[in-house]
Amino acid sequence: MTTLPGQLNPTPRLLLGPGPSDAHPRVLSAMATPLLGHLDPQFLQLMTETQQMLRQVYQTTNPLTFPVSATGMAGMETCLVNLVEPGERVLVCAKGYFGGRMIDVAGRAGAEVGVLEVPWGQVFDLDQIRDRIRAFRPRVVGIVHAETSTGAWQPLAELGRICHEHDALLIIDTVTSLGCVEVAIDAWEVDAVYSCSQKGLSCPPGLSPISFSPRAVEKLTSRKSKVQSWYLDLTMVQSYWGSERAYHHTAPITMIYALREGLRLVLEEGLTARWQRHLHNHRALKAGLTALGLHYIAPEGHQLPQLNAVRIPDGVDDLTIRKRLLTEFGIEIGGGLGEFKGKAWRIGLMGHNSRPSCVLQVLAALEHCLNQPGVGVAAAEAVYAQAA
Amino acid sequence: MTTLPGQLNPTPRLLLGPGPSDAHPRVLSAMATPLLGHLDPQFLQLMTETQQMLRQVYQTTNPLTFPVSATGMAGMETCLVNLVEPGERVLVCAKGYFGGRMIDVAGRAGAEVGVLEVPWGQVFDLDQIRDRIRAFRPRVVGIVHAETSTGAWQPLAELGRICHEHDALLIIDTVTSLGCVEVAIDAWEVDAVYSCSQKGLSCPPGLSPISFSPRAVEKLTSRKSKVQSWYLDLTMVQSYWGSERAYHHTAPITMIYALREGLRLVLEEGLTARWQRHLHNHRALKAGLTALGLHYIAPEGHQLPQLNAVRIPDGVDDLTIRKRLLTEFGIEIGGGLGEFKGKAWRIGLMGHNSRPSCVLQVLAALEHCLNQPGVGVAAAEAVYAQAA
Repeated sequence: MTTLPGQLNPTPRLLLGPGPSDAHPRVLSAMATPLLGHLDPQFLQLMTETQQMLRQVYQTTNPLTFPVSATGMAGMETCLVNLVEPGERVLVCAKGYFGGRMIDVAGRAGAEVGVLEVPWGQVFDLDQIRDRIRAFRPRVVGIVHAETSTGAWQPLAELGRICHEHDALLIIDTVTSLGCVEVAIDAWEVDAVYSCSQKGLSCPPGLSPISFSPRAVEKLTSRKSKVQSWYLDLTMVQSYWGSERAYHHTAPITMIYALREGLRLVLEEGLTARWQRHLHNHRALKAGLTALGLHYIAPEGHQLPQLNAVRIPDGVDDLTIRKRLLTEFGIEIGGGLGEFKGKAWRIGLMGHNSRPSCVLQVLAALEHCLNQPGVGVAAAEAVYAQAA
Repeated sequence: MTTLPGQLNPTPRLLLGPGPSDAHPRVLSAMATPLLGHLDPQFLQLMTETQQMLRQVYQTTNPLTFPVSATGMAGMETCLVNLVEPGERVLVCAKGYFGGRMIDVAGRAGAEVGVLEVPWGQVFDLDQIRDRIRAFRPRVVGIVHAETSTGAWQPLAELGRICHEHDALLIIDTVTSLGCVEVAIDAWEVDAVYSCSQKGLSCPPGLSPISFSPRAVEKLTSRKSKVQSWYLDLTMVQSYWGSERAYHHTAPITMIYALREGLRLVLEEGLTARWQRHLHNHRALKAGLTALGLHYIAPEGHQLPQLNAVRIPDGVDDLTIRKRLLTEFGIEIGGGLGEFKGKAWRIGLMGHNSRPSCVLQVLAALEHCLNQPGVGVAAAEAVYAQAA
């Protein structure tokens, strides 16, 4: 390279895809703060505060609650490699792309993996899962709460109890749910949960908040084999995030600054108010999308407010429209993954981006590209007007 | 928690420990930039630019050169889990704390690990390593270039050739060397290298830049077993960082912004000028430390300019002095690790922080705490005066 790349100067975007969602301006400001050392008493205090807030957002008292120093998929791997010993049975309930990944990750952890599937876009009936647990007798059950590939919202409140009645631990994926809809780790009897920073928490990608129940910690500490990943080995990492604060790896300081600010924003608003806001803006968006003839993939009653996955109408070209949204309007929405490639759009209203101005912007841009001027925005405005 | 933690407001620090070192102000500014999506064409271009600059800094043409989405230790794990198949022999040359970690990580990857050791603080003679390679016949050899725990600088220029003569791949750890002293991946015939973002590159912690030689890629693509880590599996990750740009995991956008800016700073300065600057400020610091009666752990000729590890004099209490440096002067230096705990100080002059004002500040603070007013600063100033 003879000349160096120029100053960072990205075109402003509105990120309304499946994530990353826009970071809140206060989060971005926090990230420009000079560093503390990872063992500085002031940084240790920021870690404690981050953990306390994270417990509130997860609705748990689990001591082992902290952000893994990598993105969401590392959270999935952390849960599986720590809770599974080679040869143990793991049941993965897969209803989309990310459930499929859990099968792969569990297999690499040495598990004997059993798979329960429903067609993409559907959710599980808990009786189905109970029956399969009885037949397969897994030590661990894994399931995705908010399936990012289909927009389907899996009810989970009773699943922990069912797992515990059958001596299995429950791992749930809340990558696309935390900070958007209710996640209640203790009430739901969840043993291990992971999420990400770049969706409902309105931070950049880079961290995976996790929480392990006392039952999960007991399994962890009674392992016979070493955790195969050094970096994700919670028997060691918990010494840094626990009371000892013993050095393991250098924490990603700036990302922790970001997460702390993102959690402050969640709790300033209040969990219930935040979930209500996500529902409210979803209703407006849904009215607009429906008016434009865009139909949800997930069944009524199981549609995620924060991730609106709709079928692309016949005769409409996926890439053409998404490219126009990006270049003419600066709006990013998501295409389909896996079997929905080219067939679905995924519109995210996550965290900070779940607000009327985002709903109206994306509908205005979509109706313009679909040659249906006014149709989507009017329908959304009617929902907002009714609520006012 | 009834009240929320307040606004982020850390006391300004000067980070002169073993890392993190201070992020450059331009890097911090870059991190406040709003996000692009991880598949946005503009972000893909930023990735390409980051890779091109990283290749220059590593002095390599290796196509497979990119930052792993996690901190430096994940880079070590990435190299080992991708290049080792269960049962293969790995020789680790350990001369300090981080060499010791490599033994652990290689073992978890299923390797039959052989260990060659010298006392902490020493470096290896390459003949020693050659003899051990002949006897043990490893498939992979691992060694640390700049041992962060002892400040010892391992000569490596001929080791790649020796490994290749014996059909072994060479992995080197440049966590504490990249951006501070010469690292020449192609000329040294290195097969896999990892580093970090928070030292010589003057970014926050959070990324681990790696590079794999064609020989390493050949080993990777001819593996018989799946890589045990999904998150670090380069057979998949390389599709995102390669020409396909296929989705694997969501890249840590903001950290990539930071790294791109950090690499721009390195190349604006020029590699040779940067290494000279590190040497120059090291000489001044060393004169000051020596005048204060602080002696280097590593032997003459093998002392890292960017990490000055010295023995704490008898009768001086480690924690007392370091606490005073932090609270009275806002300066962080490092204590000893492992067998040097309480017995060594580690003073980093890395990247942006290798400059006269840092040298003089830390010497002034140290001589104050050690009751030797003027002694250290005067010696350093004499070095600077001589050079002027």
